Amino acid sequence: MQIIDGTIASPKGFYATGLHAGLKKVKKDLGVIYSEIPANAAAVYTTNQVKAAPIAVTKETLKNQKLQAVVVNSGVANACTGKLGLENAKKMQELAAAHLSVKKETVAIASTGVIGKQLPMAVIEEGINRIDLQKPVPMAFHEAILTTDTSTKEIVVTEKINGQLVTMAGVAKGSGMIHPNMATMLAFITTDAHISKQLLQMILTEKTETTFNQITVDGDTSTNDMVLVLANGLAENPIIEINTEAYEKFVAMFQLVSETLAKMIAKDGEGATKLIEAQVIGAHSDLEARLVAKKVVGSSLVKTAMFGEDPNWGRIICAVGYAGSQTDPEKIDMWIGDQQLLKQSQPQVFDEELMKKTLEKATVSITVDLNIGTQSGKAWGCDLTYKYIEVNALYHT
Amino acid sequence: MQIIDGTIASPKGFYATGLHAGLKKVKKDLGVIYSEIPANAAAVYTTNQVKAAPIAVTKETLKNQKLQAVVVNSGVANACTGKLGLENAKKMQELAAAHLSVKKETVAIASTGVIGKQLPMAVIEEGINRIDLQKPVPMAFHEAILTTDTSTKEIVVTEKINGQLVTMAGVAKGSGMIHPNMATMLAFITTDAHISKQLLQMILTEKTETTFNQITVDGDTSTNDMVLVLANGLAENPIIEINTEAYEKFVAMFQLVSETLAKMIAKDGEGATKLIEAQVIGAHSDLEARLVAKKVVGSSLVKTAMFGEDPNWGRIICAVGYAGSQTDPEKIDMWIGDQQLLKQSQPQVFDEELMKKTLEKATVSITVDLNIGTQSGKAWGCDLTYKYIEVNALYHT
Repeated sequence: MQIIDGTIASPKGFYATGLHAGLKKVKKDLGVIYSEIPANAAAVYTTNQVKAAPIAVTKETLKNQKLQAVVVNSGVANACTGKLGLENAKKMQELAAAHLSVKKETVAIASTGVIGKQLPMAVIEEGINRIDLQKPVPMAFHEAILTTDTSTKEIVVTEKINGQLVTMAGVAKGSGMIHPNMATMLAFITTDAHISKQLLQMILTEKTETTFNQITVDGDTSTNDMVLVLANGLAENPIIEINTEAYEKFVAMFQLVSETLAKMIAKDGEGATKLIEAQVIGAHSDLEARLVAKKVVGSSLVKTAMFGEDPNWGRIICAVGYAGSQTDPEKIDMWIGDQQLLKQSQPQVFDEELMKKTLEKATVSITVDLNIGTQSGKAWGCDLTYKYIEVNALYHT
Repeated sequence: MQIIDGTIASPKGFYATGLHAGLKKVKKDLGVIYSEIPANAAAVYTTNQVKAAPIAVTKETLKNQKLQAVVVNSGVANACTGKLGLENAKKMQELAAAHLSVKKETVAIASTGVIGKQLPMAVIEEGINRIDLQKPVPMAFHEAILTTDTSTKEIVVTEKINGQLVTMAGVAKGSGMIHPNMATMLAFITTDAHISKQLLQMILTEKTETTFNQITVDGDTSTNDMVLVLANGLAENPIIEINTEAYEKFVAMFQLVSETLAKMIAKDGEGATKLIEAQVIGAHSDLEARLVAKKVVGSSLVKTAMFGEDPNWGRIICAVGYAGSQTDPEKIDMWIGDQQLLKQSQPQVFDEELMKKTLEKATVSITVDLNIGTQSGKAWGCDLTYKYIEVNALYHT
């Protein structure tokens, strides 16, 4: 497998572009992904019971059909907008279908931004009609889906599968209300691999558990989260069957793309200065390991300690203790970077100068060995900073 | 029932005092409550699996005996301190028993402060030996249990029960790692009521669910939480039996003392500028109502919105949606103060000037009507501020 420079339009037969329609003041706010032929599609959605209108429309759309296009706006989430919001979401789908000359049943839609505001449909319509796939600017799509993100998030990988070069690309946005089980997070993955819709959905659901659902910025699960995958088969590989070498290669690509995007989102959490990676080993089950890891990176006290660059293992073991998994409080080993802080729950002497350097880095890894089993899991978060308060307290509805 | 000025030593036969032993630099850090006669006692403890040594010792002590004294230190939590920590906790119990001339089986102990540090036993011993119950200064006990709290927290109430004046007093400390299911929170309640240990424990357990366990500062459950109640019977009321008028009066006193202390802790959360009270009505069950209320006051996005004094109902409804209780996302009514923001999940026009004034107050109340049932529940939290980051990022182990 190879990581290459590229965009969401790198896989064969995909096009993407974006523009400024006018939902936001200056920045791009409307984008489209298009596939030459209808693609097999899979998706996971927010677990929040309050779901935005576009989630309902895309969920319904994906029930039976293949997808040929995805249209996304930022600036307005179209959440808590009632019947009019649902009508507007359907209208957005219809407008995009008409402009792209595809069936509306093959168009997925997504929105992100302010909750409780109706989509300005005249702006949306005028924007959609200006989309020009003859002169696509794929990076403009990456930009158009952002809200308070400070940078675009993308990764492209290639792999030979059964003699054919398969390409997979992913693009995502964060950056607040991030504690997915799907929230204000949008991620789109395109591939030219030939794979069935069923297998694609299975892999997406499974990998979401260990990647996108293992990041947290502020513990809030949004109303608009979605990860959407399109596979158009234009790489012309023999269709990928489960438990084959081709399958393993495809899953590895999917894992890398999902995990990379998830980490990019965590790292660019609102106000964050660093990525925190927690790895829990020696657990009874992988589920419990992931649970503990997510509690560690989700703790406000751990997050502020990391901002203050303090190796505060007391706050970490406290989070381990309330995570709700099986643990033996007397048996916990802990490391920050490669320096051990606890052995059998007892403090160890460590090199303070070296620790200082470890904590200054852009990525800090915390490892916890529960010493009661053989399973492991990871989670990713970010530090909690003055800037987070500024971004979220100064933001006014 | 009457609220009166007083201290934890106001009920008949109780004495309390505190002093600076030397665990902290300048502030008082060691305190004692003493009852003339052994008192019936009840307690609830942290649900964190990593429990501090004093929790283990007090839990064991309370199994069979009455309590005559409680000794508390701040500065060092005696958590994650292994065998030596447990020995030190027992030693602290023995030293206090010897100095106060009571059986060690009647002495409860509690600690709060830094995790992972051993108690300096010479300092503890010297401090205990200086405790002078001939010249007690009860407010010094209130001060001695504080950590990053900005003020002492106490309430005293009196009530005639079966012809006798019964007094109940409570004192507590917060103020970070607060998301009880018992955490860095300590609360002590004394009363001269005559009531059995069993009934006392029942009332404590029940009332903790709707008071202390319904507050959150940062979502972290500490290793040291404890609420301890002593009832010495010196009011000489006939023993309180369940489901009598006397019982109802006692429970009402207990509810007021517990809820008042809980709200004081939430309001004095680290860096907080205001108390946020969430009331959820129209729920299927009181448990679900409390769950939703606690998610609302626990949301970092709601907390920062309150700091920014922004009526951001989108963040509130988002928290309602991921709370995990039964809801109908289309049916939610919402108020801040007495102004309605949502009706059947649709935004309402409100008076912006009046809302501004409501949000500037020291207490902001959020009411959510789920409109699917008849049950209700409350929770209390505080805003999330620059100061919280400062307190927790600058604090170094």
